[in-house]
Amino acid sequence: MVVETDATSRASMSAAQALRRHALSHGKVQMMPKCAIRGLSDFADWYTPGVAAPCLAIRSDPSLVDRYTNRSNTVAIVSDGTRVLGLGDIGPEAAMPVMEGKALLFKYLGGVDAIPICLRTKDPAELVRTVKLLEPSFGGINLEDIAQPKCFRILESLRAELTIPLWHDDQQGTATVVLAALINALRVVKKELGRVKVALIGMGAANVATYRLLKAEGMDPAGVIACDSRGTLHTQRSDIEQDRDAHAEKWHVCCETNVERVHGGIAEALRGADVCVAFSRCGPGTIQPEWIRTMNRDAIVFACANPTPEISPHLAREAGARVVGTGGSNYPNQVNNALAFPAIFRGALDVQARTISDDMALAAAHEIARCAAERGIREDYIVPRLDEWDVYPRVAVATAFKAQQQGLARLTSSWEDLYAKAQTTMNEARTATQLLLREKLIPVDS
Amino acid sequence: MVVETDATSRASMSAAQALRRHALSHGKVQMMPKCAIRGLSDFADWYTPGVAAPCLAIRSDPSLVDRYTNRSNTVAIVSDGTRVLGLGDIGPEAAMPVMEGKALLFKYLGGVDAIPICLRTKDPAELVRTVKLLEPSFGGINLEDIAQPKCFRILESLRAELTIPLWHDDQQGTATVVLAALINALRVVKKELGRVKVALIGMGAANVATYRLLKAEGMDPAGVIACDSRGTLHTQRSDIEQDRDAHAEKWHVCCETNVERVHGGIAEALRGADVCVAFSRCGPGTIQPEWIRTMNRDAIVFACANPTPEISPHLAREAGARVVGTGGSNYPNQVNNALAFPAIFRGALDVQARTISDDMALAAAHEIARCAAERGIREDYIVPRLDEWDVYPRVAVATAFKAQQQGLARLTSSWEDLYAKAQTTMNEARTATQLLLREKLIPVDS
Repeated sequence: MVVETDATSRASMSAAQALRRHALSHGKVQMMPKCAIRGLSDFADWYTPGVAAPCLAIRSDPSLVDRYTNRSNTVAIVSDGTRVLGLGDIGPEAAMPVMEGKALLFKYLGGVDAIPICLRTKDPAELVRTVKLLEPSFGGINLEDIAQPKCFRILESLRAELTIPLWHDDQQGTATVVLAALINALRVVKKELGRVKVALIGMGAANVATYRLLKAEGMDPAGVIACDSRGTLHTQRSDIEQDRDAHAEKWHVCCETNVERVHGGIAEALRGADVCVAFSRCGPGTIQPEWIRTMNRDAIVFACANPTPEISPHLAREAGARVVGTGGSNYPNQVNNALAFPAIFRGALDVQARTISDDMALAAAHEIARCAAERGIREDYIVPRLDEWDVYPRVAVATAFKAQQQGLARLTSSWEDLYAKAQTTMNEARTATQLLLREKLIPVDS
Repeated sequence: MVVETDATSRASMSAAQALRRHALSHGKVQMMPKCAIRGLSDFADWYTPGVAAPCLAIRSDPSLVDRYTNRSNTVAIVSDGTRVLGLGDIGPEAAMPVMEGKALLFKYLGGVDAIPICLRTKDPAELVRTVKLLEPSFGGINLEDIAQPKCFRILESLRAELTIPLWHDDQQGTATVVLAALINALRVVKKELGRVKVALIGMGAANVATYRLLKAEGMDPAGVIACDSRGTLHTQRSDIEQDRDAHAEKWHVCCETNVERVHGGIAEALRGADVCVAFSRCGPGTIQPEWIRTMNRDAIVFACANPTPEISPHLAREAGARVVGTGGSNYPNQVNNALAFPAIFRGALDVQARTISDDMALAAAHEIARCAAERGIREDYIVPRLDEWDVYPRVAVATAFKAQQQGLARLTSSWEDLYAKAQTTMNEARTATQLLLREKLIPVDS
């Protein structure tokens, strides 16, 4: 157990460092002017009296808000704090560091201006109403860390009512990167998605959406065994069947998968599986090495609980897994939404898409996979690293292009123009950050 | 009429320029990282797995959200777009340029991160509920451009329920700068607030609040004649009396002022007045030069309608007014809230004040007046110019200090420390903006 003790003490050291750095910076994002101010006379354009001109123009044609303000580049990150990381219902204040972190990634990786908004309510109807009230101020909405099953109903209701891109990152973003990672992992082990057995461990928002996206990509439901905190899913799960309106998605999984009605828990779900996709309880110890040993040859294990994976990657590999991914940046193969959401929103915003369709997410997943494949994939490199900057504009354009093809884009543009625009916006965000850092306008510790 | 034609054509040229510049910049504010990113490993602190540490700390003690996130420097600018500038009910989208302009001033002048939030509702109860839901994400709330009389009820309800600074800038901000300007204008003309006759033209949020603050400062209500779009206010205004619950503030003014029951309109209100404070219908022509001629000697005229004053300053001066102020930056004596709200919030946030009291606003007004007085006041210089940078930290500290004296501050600090902190925060905001501009990360036209 020396190894686990080391891991624990390493974790508590990094926790202390994260706390210290958060306190030093007093948060992670700020507002900044984006228009030229050279003297007092500029305020006559940006404020009174000049500002009346864009106001009047927008009154005549509300769509001009996207020309004269930053709305079309601004996304609200909305959470109620009911399902934050693997920490559960920690409330809106405690969810703020995650939303600020997300806003940081939105800008640094995607050039998207994102505003953290944690709401003091647990009522899904109130959350839906609030987001609708916010729509005039935002070009997109990113839902985040909302407990299931209400997150499914919230996404459905808002999708029907909003005319701007809406995304629940815990569902759609996660599913997108899992698919990208799985496409390449399967190539590494030379297996096919249509023929593998897949264990889905933890049936929260992430795996419910992953199930749907993998199926759209060709996974055979019959080869899937899903498992939640009460055990494997099958048609004899009366607890789910009884509450089938609220848990429609899960009941659907019960009906389509596990045709042999395997009973039991994670151990049973993993036996004979080629792929394990876990979004469940933080480890270590949630998944035992001996269970990994019962998986099929050349097993693929994604242990994605945050902040601590269900099983530590080296234990999983020791137990025979060939390709291992986690959600954190502290291991190889970071199966992390950051590869997807900043670029997907970049693409959706650049063509003023009306929504983000599953096909747009699929296009993004394939482009992410292609980026890594072009560099040469192997066991410890199935997805791009977060600092491979060319990935983001490529994924943005793949998303934007799909929106155009599906008739979901308000603006249309060529591949070249979309790429140039996305790349410029993204580069400027990083250049500006590095500039502020170099000039000591961002505090640096040590 | 050559003059008015010139003014009109000048106005349309500046409108065209404002539109062009707004389109070039695509808005006026953006998000920007404020924490150090030197490589991938930083994401392990700012996002997963490190971010769990501040989340857990805040779960144990929600007040730590102000240590580990940017909340304590972040203000929501909330509007329903029902009373924007002098343009009326133009809706939430069309109100966005004003809120972005406000956010620009918040940052550039006060170092405050402010988020424009225009809501799609006209229902005051819904606005109140939404602001309460937003509280976990914000260190303060700035209400803006909400029609009266609902703005009074909204301010009251929220003041009772929020534990963070709340400010309705159209009421409190405006009253604060009017008081500052009037203190110095009266010095220039050697008159005393307790003995002057004051005409309040337009009884919207601005003048209702101005009336209250001037009275707190010693103005004699008996010498006031207020005037709304239906004429002068007095106890025979049955239209106001009939709806006296909704219009409590206005009815109060009816009862306390105009003891001689002067009937009529603006002309009658101005006759024999020493001071005219107008926040009414945009000019030109709302106030006629011949009415100014009937005012007392050494008259003071604040014509503050936005974007176009009720009477152009040179016409008012030709007609005999000695000190003339407007709301715009295109004339001397800009009686503009920008002198107050960025600094007042800076002060309130720096001591984590629970609210912003009238006494805090009075302290701010006196400090604004003092700044100009120390430089030497005269007819065309009664308030500081917006680029006299020392004003803002001084006003911030005056506000913060009053909060401390009144027991409204969660943090306490010395004058010197407060000043140094405010000055640093404000300077960094301007330095960062100028840096981005110099490096062409902010677009410049011409």
